[in-house]
Amino acid sequence: MSKGTIADFREAVEAGQADRVLALLADEVTFNNPVTFQPFQGRVLLEVVVPKLLDVWQGLWYVDELHGRDQVGLVFEARAGGRDVWGIDLLRFDAEGLISEVTVMVRPLSGLQALAEEMRAALAS
Amino acid sequence: MSKGTIADFREAVEAGQADRVLALLADEVTFNNPVTFQPFQGRVLLEVVVPKLLDVWQGLWYVDELHGRDQVGLVFEARAGGRDVWGIDLLRFDAEGLISEVTVMVRPLSGLQALAEEMRAALAS
Repeated sequence: MSKGTIADFREAVEAGQADRVLALLADEVTFNNPVTFQPFQGRVLLEVVVPKLLDVWQGLWYVDELHGRDQVGLVFEARAGGRDVWGIDLLRFDAEGLISEVTVMVRPLSGLQALAEEMRAALAS
Repeated sequence: MSKGTIADFREAVEAGQADRVLALLADEVTFNNPVTFQPFQGRVLLEVVVPKLLDVWQGLWYVDELHGRDQVGLVFEARAGGRDVWGIDLLRFDAEGLISEVTVMVRPLSGLQALAEEMRAALAS
């Protein structure tokens, strides 16, 4: 788990810089998004999806960082669809230090529903 | 952050033992549940709410533990309302080592919606 990668990821997401986020992802990355049961799989798909998803957030800032055996948790506060959202990004890494899995969970239900609505609209565009 | 408290909490939640969970909570505990924006505040309320909420889960087991500066994250997998749910409990502690804040986030949307439905029914009963 590279400290540099984690710091880069935090800064890039907070700044809404999709290219910088994509540069940190492994080719076979799995993105367990907060809305759908099925993950988004692979860099090729994420190159399309990540810029749209970053646009969904109206301000997102990380407030804490937690470390586990083989994953890191980045706690954030954000706004989406006019709603307050609290969430966490769980990151796993491959042998090269690239991000191999991102899992996002948010609360409350009103925030996740607003996020789902915004995600649907963004991905349809 | 007491290791004993964390291990006790994990075991008690997995076993659905409300009394054991309640014994770990500070009087002024804040419970940021995954569904409503407003938290449930205080032990007196949680003595009513926790037993009902534990009943909502059809199996919940912790799969990872993450440590931050002043909070711990317990990643879990569970079933609620016939749906698969992935989630995290974020715990904070007071000076006595009792749990002062619990924040729960889950994914995906279908899981949180099923959980919200089950929570509503359980709290109405």
